[in-house]
Amino acid sequence: MFDKLYAALVHYPIRDKHDRAVATAITNLDIHDIARSARTFGLGGYFVVTPVKAQRWLACRIIHHWSAGWGATYNPNRKDALSLVNIAPDLGHVADVIEERHGRQPLWVATSARRYPNTLSFESLIDHIRNVPEQPVCLLFGTGWGLHPELILDADHVLEPIAGVGPYNHLSVRAAAAIIFHRLAALLTKASEDN
Amino acid sequence: MFDKLYAALVHYPIRDKHDRAVATAITNLDIHDIARSARTFGLGGYFVVTPVKAQRWLACRIIHHWSAGWGATYNPNRKDALSLVNIAPDLGHVADVIEERHGRQPLWVATSARRYPNTLSFESLIDHIRNVPEQPVCLLFGTGWGLHPELILDADHVLEPIAGVGPYNHLSVRAAAAIIFHRLAALLTKASEDN
Repeated sequence: MFDKLYAALVHYPIRDKHDRAVATAITNLDIHDIARSARTFGLGGYFVVTPVKAQRWLACRIIHHWSAGWGATYNPNRKDALSLVNIAPDLGHVADVIEERHGRQPLWVATSARRYPNTLSFESLIDHIRNVPEQPVCLLFGTGWGLHPELILDADHVLEPIAGVGPYNHLSVRAAAAIIFHRLAALLTKASEDN
Repeated sequence: MFDKLYAALVHYPIRDKHDRAVATAITNLDIHDIARSARTFGLGGYFVVTPVKAQRWLACRIIHHWSAGWGATYNPNRKDALSLVNIAPDLGHVADVIEERHGRQPLWVATSARRYPNTLSFESLIDHIRNVPEQPVCLLFGTGWGLHPELILDADHVLEPIAGVGPYNHLSVRAAAAIIFHRLAALLTKASEDN
């Protein structure tokens, strides 16, 4: 059922430390780490989203190196993970690709270290995935200081923040994505076994 | 109780893709990401371990930049996370620092994507932490293609691998550390609530 779960790493609009909307740069490790986590937990795909054309070109070059270039022979595991990656200019493009595959627009679930009025628990998201199996779900992850509030408020839901053991809660997006995929996969497996 | 849990990121002896023992290079994001995850989940400390003096010097410079240099003002959250980081030449040094703090040598628990004869489940590790609260625990993480088997067989235990949804299991060490800290913190909280 996880093949209908997607992740999108958003590079615009992103908050900077002064809460301004900015575009962030694509980083090599964001592509690799999140692709490897997505592949390990069986996601349907991983979108790297930026409106900056030169950045998309850079991301495509990185992926090409490991998928078809010298890197594909050197490390086939990377090729395998990167086969999940799509480079997209905006979320409209992401919606189109997902709809083409599944015949439906995805449910947009933003992630954030903060709580918002439309916060959804991990358990409720799993219930939705099980109860409406025909609808794909796309998790939105922010770079920089997180997704801009305008994007969060536009999403259908915001996933509950990952709780640390104290007030400090500044996971990297690579760490947060890994924890979220793992937790959703564990809850989905448990829910399937219970029934 | 998590302040007795430590993590060490090992750069030697590490497996390369041909199973030879090599020393890997320290990377900037390994320091930051794992420090931020360790801080979020309340670990007692995070050791970055390499026998290469020039690499330790580099790691110290990175930490100094964010702890006392210009970066400390620019992003205090990083300073906060990096206060957990210790740069060490070998695991003997790690043992000394932990023993000085807690009066006991740590239990060494290696992590690996493979199963070994002395594999320990997450639940058993939590039982140990609760039953022997005076003993610190140090999780060992490998860079490159993972900890060299000689180090794994020397450890007291090997933590069970993180299960993906299929045979692919190539998480980055940054992702694996985040998932392991999160899972241990969740199990420990649950065990404390149950009693």
